[in-house]
Amino acid sequence: MMKAKAAVFLGPGKPFKIQEFPLPEIEAGGILVKVRMSTICGSDVNTWQGKRDAPLPIILGHEIVGEIKEMDKDITQDTLGNPLSIGDRITWTIMASCGRCYYCAMKRLPQKCLSLYKYGHESCQHPPYLNGGLAEYIYLRPGTAIFKIPDELSDEEAAPLNCAMGTVMNSVETIGVELGDNVVIEGVGMLGISAVALLREKGAGKIIALDKNQNRLEIAKEFGADEVINVTQKEPAEILSRINKDITCGYGIDVVIDVSGSSQVIPQGIEMLRIGGRYVLVGTTFPKAIFTLDGYVITTKMITIKGIHNYHAHHLAQGLCFVARTHRKYPFGKLVTHRFNLQQVDQAFALASSGQSHRVAVVP
Amino acid sequence: MMKAKAAVFLGPGKPFKIQEFPLPEIEAGGILVKVRMSTICGSDVNTWQGKRDAPLPIILGHEIVGEIKEMDKDITQDTLGNPLSIGDRITWTIMASCGRCYYCAMKRLPQKCLSLYKYGHESCQHPPYLNGGLAEYIYLRPGTAIFKIPDELSDEEAAPLNCAMGTVMNSVETIGVELGDNVVIEGVGMLGISAVALLREKGAGKIIALDKNQNRLEIAKEFGADEVINVTQKEPAEILSRINKDITCGYGIDVVIDVSGSSQVIPQGIEMLRIGGRYVLVGTTFPKAIFTLDGYVITTKMITIKGIHNYHAHHLAQGLCFVARTHRKYPFGKLVTHRFNLQQVDQAFALASSGQSHRVAVVP
Repeated sequence: MMKAKAAVFLGPGKPFKIQEFPLPEIEAGGILVKVRMSTICGSDVNTWQGKRDAPLPIILGHEIVGEIKEMDKDITQDTLGNPLSIGDRITWTIMASCGRCYYCAMKRLPQKCLSLYKYGHESCQHPPYLNGGLAEYIYLRPGTAIFKIPDELSDEEAAPLNCAMGTVMNSVETIGVELGDNVVIEGVGMLGISAVALLREKGAGKIIALDKNQNRLEIAKEFGADEVINVTQKEPAEILSRINKDITCGYGIDVVIDVSGSSQVIPQGIEMLRIGGRYVLVGTTFPKAIFTLDGYVITTKMITIKGIHNYHAHHLAQGLCFVARTHRKYPFGKLVTHRFNLQQVDQAFALASSGQSHRVAVVP
Repeated sequence: MMKAKAAVFLGPGKPFKIQEFPLPEIEAGGILVKVRMSTICGSDVNTWQGKRDAPLPIILGHEIVGEIKEMDKDITQDTLGNPLSIGDRITWTIMASCGRCYYCAMKRLPQKCLSLYKYGHESCQHPPYLNGGLAEYIYLRPGTAIFKIPDELSDEEAAPLNCAMGTVMNSVETIGVELGDNVVIEGVGMLGISAVALLREKGAGKIIALDKNQNRLEIAKEFGADEVINVTQKEPAEILSRINKDITCGYGIDVVIDVSGSSQVIPQGIEMLRIGGRYVLVGTTFPKAIFTLDGYVITTKMITIKGIHNYHAHHLAQGLCFVARTHRKYPFGKLVTHRFNLQQVDQAFALASSGQSHRVAVVP
């Protein structure tokens, strides 16, 4: 029986442990993938830091690009109908869903499937063991949407698609950005930067990026931000005045996208909104992200607040097509700044948690 | 020059003062209306109690039915194209809007027009003086949508249309109730009761009414509520368990409509929601309605929260048609329990603020 190495997470503060697992038998609808690259997502960092719980031991990593090593012989096409062969590079939904439960079939929320299985989020104690990206192989279950990656995309461009870009697609679709809408993006990490490019292509009006990291803000300009504001260099009142008075002629912002991962910025974000403005909350994926609102403001200013989490398969498909279409215009690939191997995963997480890089890659 | 009497509000705790005002000259697009009946809205009560400010002195009352006394000769039709004559009974939008500003023309929010004029909400110090319902006459400005009232509707059925029903139409359209959705209505005062009937007709699933007043809950049943819960008779945990476990099979509620006018119930309302559930905030029309949320819950449960305030002309048109179509099925008329004349406005407000009646009428 062949075996594959994985970097196993045993808990916050503990070093990763390289462990070997047997390659699984392929069931009906299953695919065995050789991992080419995983990028470390902000939620991986949250787990590593102990900000959120995970079932231990676990193989982290869910932003993955890989190539098909072996698959159920009945699989001949990807989810868009493209022919699929051994050796093809693919991306896939972060989750496997059953397609026939209350959330899948009735509420159109496969990411909340009653028998949800999320890659990089489950314990690796039981077969098929290999269910995260920080490993040589990963096994994809039936119920996972699969998309072939066009040759012109690099691994760096493809790896972050199935978390960061899928989530951004969902957030923009959910909150609804109309032609000419002025948009504030709170936090221009990987999701925020992806949102800047998407909004630029969707015909947004002014795109304003907020962050505390000047380097990220400079990159946001390359991706199409009209205005960047370093929140460590201005008082909150000054930021509000700049956005609500100068930039939006006194009306306020149409849409705020929060991908900052900090609940402290939410009340200020809501204050930026125009009457009828819309706020989408994406970044608070850790417990106790408490904030306070005034119902009078929500009602009389007719504010919309929506939370989104993960995405539907069509968001990943759209995100893949979007990056394939625009990757010569927006330097997605350079957002992945460093490569580490499986033995260097501790270093990779230390760098990822520093916030210096949009994405750090692990190449098994 | 003819004069008309009005009950003028001078501030919280002060008795209304009957005062005479000259009838205005009719400008282009203007209509002089003889008030047949005004019903006292919850926001009138808030102003009377000092919970929210108003420009003083003021003629309160904005839920009004009246008949045309005089109008610009160029007006021949109502906003739906029905012929309009002197003596016709009409209802009209709570506001006059300019139709050509940022909010009217670009953001489709005429209720936030930059030169908004709201009946029953402006001072009566300047011409045309007669701008509220607690008076013998009211003057309608150009920019007000006018709707002829079908003969089969009583004044009691018609008066609350242009605030309560218009607002309910907007809230249900805004939050989006799908066929079979289970809905909780927090507070079954005039808006809540109207929402119950509307949801029943729109094909909602379970309709659950919450209130602290048993009489209101009994009336909610007559309007189509499947289940009523007296919140003074059950512990919060018991209410949650009843709704989320027993009634919705463990999934939670699709939509919560808050018309309770209390910010304290909001967190519990959000806890009732299913994953992907939607909450519309309507009742908090007074300042400092503070509440606290967890961004983690909003994100991972993919919650939508929307505030709405007033309505667009089409909501009033739909509300009027709805009541005309269904008034034999739902006893809207009996929600107006008492009639007072202009001299008895103090008594009318005392009764209205007791919460014993859905609506108290003033017939000048």
